[in-house]
Amino acid sequence: MTDISFIAVDWGTTNRRAYAIDANGAVLRTERDGDGILAVPAGGFPDAAAAIRGRFDSDAPMLLAGMVGSNRGWVDAGYVPCTATLDAVAAATVVAGDGIRIVPGVSRSADGRGDVMRGEEVQLFGAVAAGLAPGDALLCQPGTHCKWAWMAAGAIADFTTAMTGELFSLLKAHSLIGADMAAGDVADGDAFRAGVEDARTRDLPAALFGVRASGILGLHAREDAASYVSGLLIGSDCHARLRGDARDVYLLADPVLGALYATAIDIAGGRAHLIDSHAAFVAGITRIHARIRQDPI
Amino acid sequence: MTDISFIAVDWGTTNRRAYAIDANGAVLRTERDGDGILAVPAGGFPDAAAAIRGRFDSDAPMLLAGMVGSNRGWVDAGYVPCTATLDAVAAATVVAGDGIRIVPGVSRSADGRGDVMRGEEVQLFGAVAAGLAPGDALLCQPGTHCKWAWMAAGAIADFTTAMTGELFSLLKAHSLIGADMAAGDVADGDAFRAGVEDARTRDLPAALFGVRASGILGLHAREDAASYVSGLLIGSDCHARLRGDARDVYLLADPVLGALYATAIDIAGGRAHLIDSHAAFVAGITRIHARIRQDPI
Repeated sequence: MTDISFIAVDWGTTNRRAYAIDANGAVLRTERDGDGILAVPAGGFPDAAAAIRGRFDSDAPMLLAGMVGSNRGWVDAGYVPCTATLDAVAAATVVAGDGIRIVPGVSRSADGRGDVMRGEEVQLFGAVAAGLAPGDALLCQPGTHCKWAWMAAGAIADFTTAMTGELFSLLKAHSLIGADMAAGDVADGDAFRAGVEDARTRDLPAALFGVRASGILGLHAREDAASYVSGLLIGSDCHARLRGDARDVYLLADPVLGALYATAIDIAGGRAHLIDSHAAFVAGITRIHARIRQDPI
Repeated sequence: MTDISFIAVDWGTTNRRAYAIDANGAVLRTERDGDGILAVPAGGFPDAAAAIRGRFDSDAPMLLAGMVGSNRGWVDAGYVPCTATLDAVAAATVVAGDGIRIVPGVSRSADGRGDVMRGEEVQLFGAVAAGLAPGDALLCQPGTHCKWAWMAAGAIADFTTAMTGELFSLLKAHSLIGADMAAGDVADGDAFRAGVEDARTRDLPAALFGVRASGILGLHAREDAASYVSGLLIGSDCHARLRGDARDVYLLADPVLGALYATAIDIAGGRAHLIDSHAAFVAGITRIHARIRQDPI
């Protein structure tokens, strides 16, 4: 395709999404597959990138983001410390191959508290750049490791990662309450909301044992356990982040997880706004690409 | 042995401890093995109990406590609701065989919060009966599922169980930070104390991800990860239980775990007193046995 300005790849641990983007930032074509970095053999990244160019029939520049820039990926692209601007991130992209660059992650380490992100920064910049969220805002990216980012003048001023999704998976797969959690699916109903309410006490280790005890005592239906635990974990995350005044939260999430977080944010006194994470990624990576072209490093 | 008044067995899920006790409540002989209820085949409890009598060369009455009274044990001995007195628990013992009784557990379900214990109640009653703790006191039994019991006039008025030890094991065996946690043993040092301090924020899902991020950023040594996570979890437990005024906590624990909890209780503003959990069990089971003999049910 001759109209392709550059090829962007959101290259995660287990999944990958490639976009062919034209000079106006419009997506000409996209493809998604399971060839995350864990599926790429040692030394296989140049071929994997060439294969994407081949499928898009283009030798356009490539700009990669996500775990492909980690120490388990193609090249370790490092981290830009907070406050991280789009310009600083664009200036820190790393050359991985011919016409191929990788976006660095973002870190914070003030007050002895360390945190890192890799891949999420593109969505955050893009959400603001595309007008999906204000330049001064709290953004949330739910998932295995849920990111909460405080943006200031369009830059990433600070952020916190919570192991929310991973804890849910661990508890379901391996804990005393795992069998109860397997008895029903997570739904945005009374049990989920009760979990969010109970999370106000911020006493997760006791609340989790309560699931088992309540089951034994017949206080709750086993089928509700997964929804309740999801409410406890997502609620813990939202109550911790929404201390003080009620605030707007811009959610970059799929509809299912987004709806659960929206409910929890509402209970925690915030206001949730769901925005399109794919549109945010495309807007962010296009701005970073434009910045690199404008002032080649 | 002809001096044996009764045989007490603290019969848990994976371990078992039997005591031959004389008419004065003194322990004549004790044995410990790994034949917890999971090691007893279906229908095998009568033979397992007879074998203990055989080894003690006695056909004295037996009084069993712990998971042997659960729905996975010999006979489901049910639960006595809070406020639970020693007399009420003694009156609710269940006959399992010839001269063999099982002590019930204790439950609480006020305000929709369910909790259960099974086996710990004997130590709690015994700690007070033997004068190891006052009749009105907060007692703590650390472990896989840490129990905190509020005693009033020697009865169990209320209690809370926290999944503290199980969460530590899950995180070490299965989580993103498990490899870091395997790099060093838990010790009562600076990293443990930093974890207890950081637990004040009551933001466990974020603090746990911070272990990973701090490792990547080189803020903390990997060898300290297990101690820090232990501090986070034990600290979360202690901060949640010691809200408000500083209080005395009577710890029924082995020396290693007892020392960690004592440090965390101190940081959380309490005062820890380590007491002997085996002595408490013997005192408790002897009082329950005496109550049953005095007023056979």
